[in-house]
Amino acid sequence: MGSLPREVFFVSDSTGITAETLGNSLLSQFQGQFVKHRVPFVATPDIAHSLAADITAACTDENVPIVFMTVMAPDVRDIVLNTPAITIDLVDYNLQILEETLGHRARRDRGLFHTIDDADRYRDRMSAVEFAIEHDDGESIKGLGLADVILVAPSRCGKTPTTMYLAVNYGVRAANIPLLEEDFLAQQLPEYLRAYRKRIFGMISTPQRLHQVREERRPNSPYSSLQQCSFEIKAAETIFQAHDIPYLDTSALSVEEISARVISTLGLSAAQK
Amino acid sequence: MGSLPREVFFVSDSTGITAETLGNSLLSQFQGQFVKHRVPFVATPDIAHSLAADITAACTDENVPIVFMTVMAPDVRDIVLNTPAITIDLVDYNLQILEETLGHRARRDRGLFHTIDDADRYRDRMSAVEFAIEHDDGESIKGLGLADVILVAPSRCGKTPTTMYLAVNYGVRAANIPLLEEDFLAQQLPEYLRAYRKRIFGMISTPQRLHQVREERRPNSPYSSLQQCSFEIKAAETIFQAHDIPYLDTSALSVEEISARVISTLGLSAAQK
Repeated sequence: MGSLPREVFFVSDSTGITAETLGNSLLSQFQGQFVKHRVPFVATPDIAHSLAADITAACTDENVPIVFMTVMAPDVRDIVLNTPAITIDLVDYNLQILEETLGHRARRDRGLFHTIDDADRYRDRMSAVEFAIEHDDGESIKGLGLADVILVAPSRCGKTPTTMYLAVNYGVRAANIPLLEEDFLAQQLPEYLRAYRKRIFGMISTPQRLHQVREERRPNSPYSSLQQCSFEIKAAETIFQAHDIPYLDTSALSVEEISARVISTLGLSAAQK
Repeated sequence: MGSLPREVFFVSDSTGITAETLGNSLLSQFQGQFVKHRVPFVATPDIAHSLAADITAACTDENVPIVFMTVMAPDVRDIVLNTPAITIDLVDYNLQILEETLGHRARRDRGLFHTIDDADRYRDRMSAVEFAIEHDDGESIKGLGLADVILVAPSRCGKTPTTMYLAVNYGVRAANIPLLEEDFLAQQLPEYLRAYRKRIFGMISTPQRLHQVREERRPNSPYSSLQQCSFEIKAAETIFQAHDIPYLDTSALSVEEISARVISTLGLSAAQK
């Protein structure tokens, strides 16, 4: 096959995040090289004409670009559809199905779900982010009672990115607490956490992955040794099982997936709904 | 019409974020009430059968549920497709188009883009989140030279959530710096920031919105008065224009949209690509 990399455009009248995420999911089902371009905010015919010229310029006989598109306005959409590219329209056909089902016409105006934060949602996310910063890495145990979730894990298992993801994407108030040597030796949750058992979610990793991540921070230290990593993970599992706390091996998961599992396991209602 | 709220299911073999986001975008084009359920990790026929029973139970003569689905495996997908609900399959038809275009079969295995963080992407995001926490709200001006972007704005214009969103979703190293009274009076960027002008992105709000947000923090204070908010926004605009810094009124935008605009304006390459 040895074919050229294929040009791919993710085109949206809003941020382009949805077109890009779904487009990448679909492309991940195929072999081949792709050169990807995200083109957000294609909201007027002028912008669309200029984009259409770029797409057309990228077309050759052997290589027709692929376009993933989430654009609501028909006049804008048609300009992109008229290029020689293969365009996967993620909107129009689905709107037609919904029109039939719901029995009335879609507005077809720009105004994607993501575009406007209503004041309540904004406030939830802002205060969740502030809460997460205040309660990162056991910084403060005051206010733990206000947490929607408390992530507990050995150091470097991914608590902090997950905490921030939950806060900024879902408005979930997340605190995170590292397990320490004294906890591993006692094989118990720290005393002050036990009252919040129902809101605790545990994280572990594999010894190999944890070793690798810790080595980057403190090379050749006892802290990052494979033996220490293995000990901490085993002890953390014992603690979680003893207190009946749900937990997850995060070593091969994305922050998105860890967050989704935390939310569905603890039955949190996400502000993003 | 006065019809019943319509049941909606977002069904995915992964996190369900894409099905939910695109589904909500499409539904936002219609009037009517929707009762929404996100159902992630539908990855086996067993789970799919149990979900199919729930969907079928939600069906009445007047109210057929709507399902938005991102499921790769045909055996799992078919179980959901066989319920009486209207199912919008966001995957299969698009995979068929891609198969024709690319000239080979899609794998159709679970393994969505989001599922696995490769080690590099994980490291980028982790270190970006740590950078963002260290450099939140002008906490530290050491290391500003390492920032991909420095958000500058009056207090409460949304710097912190945007900083965290950029870090955790895109692995972009973002710092944020509040403009202070002395900056407004001087109508100049603080001296130490000028070297980084090309990486600065400014944010403003409307006086009304800023007043409302600040009132929640410090009611009836000079800080939150409409007059002060109006003064700071005007002075911030003067500063941004004087230094030729791109800026945005964030008052009606979501964190996602602000972040996408920062990335496209500064030409940042997002780790999420």
